[in-house]
Amino acid sequence: MQATPDTLSRRAGATLAEQLAARFGERIDQGLLRPGARLPSVRDCAARYRVSPATVVAAYDRLQAQGLVQAQAQRGFFVRLPAGRPPRQAATGSAPGAGRTVPAAPVDATALIRGMFHAGVHGSAPGMGTLPEDWLDPALLQRALRRASGGDGRAWLRYGEPAGDPALRAAVSRRLADLGVDADPGQIVTTVGATHALDLVARTLLQPGDAVLVDEPGWAVEYERLTRLGMRLLPVPRGADGPDLGVMAALLQAHRPRLYVTVSVLHNPTGHTLSPATAHRVLGLAAQHDLTVVEDDTYAFFAPPHATRMAALDGLQRTLLVSGFSKILAPQWRVGFVAAPPALAERLVDSKLVGTLTTPALLERAVAWCLDQGLLRRHAERIVQRLDAARERAVRHALEAGCRFVTPPQGLFGWVDVGTDTERLALDMLDEGWLLAPGTLFQASRRPGTCMRINFAATQDGRFWRALRAGRG
Amino acid sequence: MQATPDTLSRRAGATLAEQLAARFGERIDQGLLRPGARLPSVRDCAARYRVSPATVVAAYDRLQAQGLVQAQAQRGFFVRLPAGRPPRQAATGSAPGAGRTVPAAPVDATALIRGMFHAGVHGSAPGMGTLPEDWLDPALLQRALRRASGGDGRAWLRYGEPAGDPALRAAVSRRLADLGVDADPGQIVTTVGATHALDLVARTLLQPGDAVLVDEPGWAVEYERLTRLGMRLLPVPRGADGPDLGVMAALLQAHRPRLYVTVSVLHNPTGHTLSPATAHRVLGLAAQHDLTVVEDDTYAFFAPPHATRMAALDGLQRTLLVSGFSKILAPQWRVGFVAAPPALAERLVDSKLVGTLTTPALLERAVAWCLDQGLLRRHAERIVQRLDAARERAVRHALEAGCRFVTPPQGLFGWVDVGTDTERLALDMLDEGWLLAPGTLFQASRRPGTCMRINFAATQDGRFWRALRAGRG
Repeated sequence: MQATPDTLSRRAGATLAEQLAARFGERIDQGLLRPGARLPSVRDCAARYRVSPATVVAAYDRLQAQGLVQAQAQRGFFVRLPAGRPPRQAATGSAPGAGRTVPAAPVDATALIRGMFHAGVHGSAPGMGTLPEDWLDPALLQRALRRASGGDGRAWLRYGEPAGDPALRAAVSRRLADLGVDADPGQIVTTVGATHALDLVARTLLQPGDAVLVDEPGWAVEYERLTRLGMRLLPVPRGADGPDLGVMAALLQAHRPRLYVTVSVLHNPTGHTLSPATAHRVLGLAAQHDLTVVEDDTYAFFAPPHATRMAALDGLQRTLLVSGFSKILAPQWRVGFVAAPPALAERLVDSKLVGTLTTPALLERAVAWCLDQGLLRRHAERIVQRLDAARERAVRHALEAGCRFVTPPQGLFGWVDVGTDTERLALDMLDEGWLLAPGTLFQASRRPGTCMRINFAATQDGRFWRALRAGRG
Repeated sequence: MQATPDTLSRRAGATLAEQLAARFGERIDQGLLRPGARLPSVRDCAARYRVSPATVVAAYDRLQAQGLVQAQAQRGFFVRLPAGRPPRQAATGSAPGAGRTVPAAPVDATALIRGMFHAGVHGSAPGMGTLPEDWLDPALLQRALRRASGGDGRAWLRYGEPAGDPALRAAVSRRLADLGVDADPGQIVTTVGATHALDLVARTLLQPGDAVLVDEPGWAVEYERLTRLGMRLLPVPRGADGPDLGVMAALLQAHRPRLYVTVSVLHNPTGHTLSPATAHRVLGLAAQHDLTVVEDDTYAFFAPPHATRMAALDGLQRTLLVSGFSKILAPQWRVGFVAAPPALAERLVDSKLVGTLTTPALLERAVAWCLDQGLLRRHAERIVQRLDAARERAVRHALEAGCRFVTPPQGLFGWVDVGTDTERLALDMLDEGWLLAPGTLFQASRRPGTCMRINFAATQDGRFWRALRAGRG
């Protein structure tokens, strides 16, 4: 985030209108204001920046002259689509077969992610999806790298096997056994993080036009990927009791979806974990309707020891389990995997070959070493302890700020109702240098709402909570 | 390749039929014999392994009982499709709009690639697509890694920017300038090798059903990826004079393809490099028909200094340039990139985000260091020198073995006519422990033929040429 929290300067070389135009232009460049997003009204903008409405009009005119925004009669100013860029679309199950165009959110999924890669004026972003950098253990990673790239000279240079580094696949097999999931190394395919695993699964199992069950709220990148691949999204409401099985059964009946993509343990964004009984009932529905379940276990290392995986109950018969090491160990290494029924594993390898050939085996071997030495387990224990303390503090802050937790706080994320439209709030807070994850990002329909996701590890700063309180006011 | 060149043992614990079944079973497991491939006839197999036809029948029965093959009346035994696996299809432009099923080749693209990951009994495989392991420079790569993971503790752990590591994008921008291609770092998106770059381009620019021009012969993984994405392939014959522009013009007229994916410099498999005049004419056709050209410059570092890139002539207006460092530096690191027109770069980043989130910035920074220090250039000079000598030896061997070069030998690959069906030859040579790249792999239609691709660096062993001579006999 390059946005600075200060106001415009009356003594700078540029006029106020130029400064204001430059600020909006910068956000458009960074993708934080996306094509289709509406700029604030002239009146709101003037009030916020303490300038005259005429200055705002001059700034917006300037942006229009630069081709960055366009005016729509009676509606205001909108960020323009770059030349040659098709409008974003999302297909939802409510209108089966026909995709409908939904307005772009001011902060959308890829914008949020792009924002997360900037250090930000405050060092961390409440909306981010990973642990703050200073929670990671560079010494551990350096040791692991040295191990993986040492040895007998050239062996570590070998192309990894197409399915992935054998040491990592063996280590993952053992780790999954600890979670009660019985997966042979031959059932495990390594990937460029869990995101790539979910992409491979979709590309292998689905055809354009297929219907797919997804959790709602759920993660926008999943919606975006499936939509881009031409799938119809069928959102299953996910509340404090887990997925709404009545809705799921009706959707199964009506649309015959092929796949259900779900986070069963420490769900993003609600933090909810499926009870064994609910997991069993979901699998029952899956068996009845010949549905494949893709269990996204991205938050595995933050989970309580005995959380139930559907893949454990089902023995990877009609489930696939996707996970990775980005959340706990090294986001930047992009090491993930999918564990699949044996007949599917080979098909996933073929998809992997045509998409990326192989994955960087060096980093996979380094992760395997961390797993094998028990160092990842110990690191995870420390992180969980630290996260527990951070969560307690963040929850106290949140309650004091008048937020309500929709689901009991667990894991890395809290799903909070702030009582005001979070899309608007996100845009306002961006001015203060805080990147939020508004509720829109977690709705397949991109419905705005009053909920948002907070990262417990990244909301330790009292200044954020004070700014939030002011922003809600 | 686990296949051993020795014959079956009459003194082993297992019967001859068991040994024979085990050998075929192993190849099916490794994916070297693919679903749909026909096993040799009983008579041929008996002759090859010096066993009785009854032994072969017993072995095939055994494989059938194991569910690995199935008999088809009057036709022989075929490798079975694993349960739930759809048959492979390839759509070609010769039957526009309608994909047609083509028989699976005994050694197909993914099988070849899988084969390349096994060390092989001879240490290298004539059909492989990369330099032999012992041509690489582990000390250079270790130094680069230490540099990239050292420094100020945590900075190297940061999520790379979505577009890729800034140091690598700047270094690539400078490297492209040396090739006459003017690309700002903002136009460069890093990828998991060139394969991933080609995948991102296809996913960003194409819709299922779109027609795409491809070189023929060309690389099977490209055909396979586009076919899986639902595209119609329009093969443009590529001969000793380059692409057949008459055919290209007719296809442009008839099918209005969106994209032409081509290797203009050191084409795979022919080694042919486009003349400046031909490049200019291709760009003229592209402009006339609103075609985007994807220039796959994977072999850039093996190329003569002044080879013409279409992206240089066109200034990245309607061209994209894809390349990487797998061929020259470290196949296993999977570092590649695409340079695109500015308006497209952002769309490619969005595709990258939904598919893999980011790419491992650590390895990108290590490659950037090699580029910046001039170490990659010096390494490439040594490799080119060594390759020149290897090519000279391999060409001599090939000519002595009665092979004919279809195009003048250049770069890493030779495209040779061996005067016998290369698919059959590939299967036979596999028995001797040699993995070939038969011509079928380079035909969009998977037509068998008498040409195959040889890797000059991996055909230095006189034993291979002797085996080839015997095999052709």
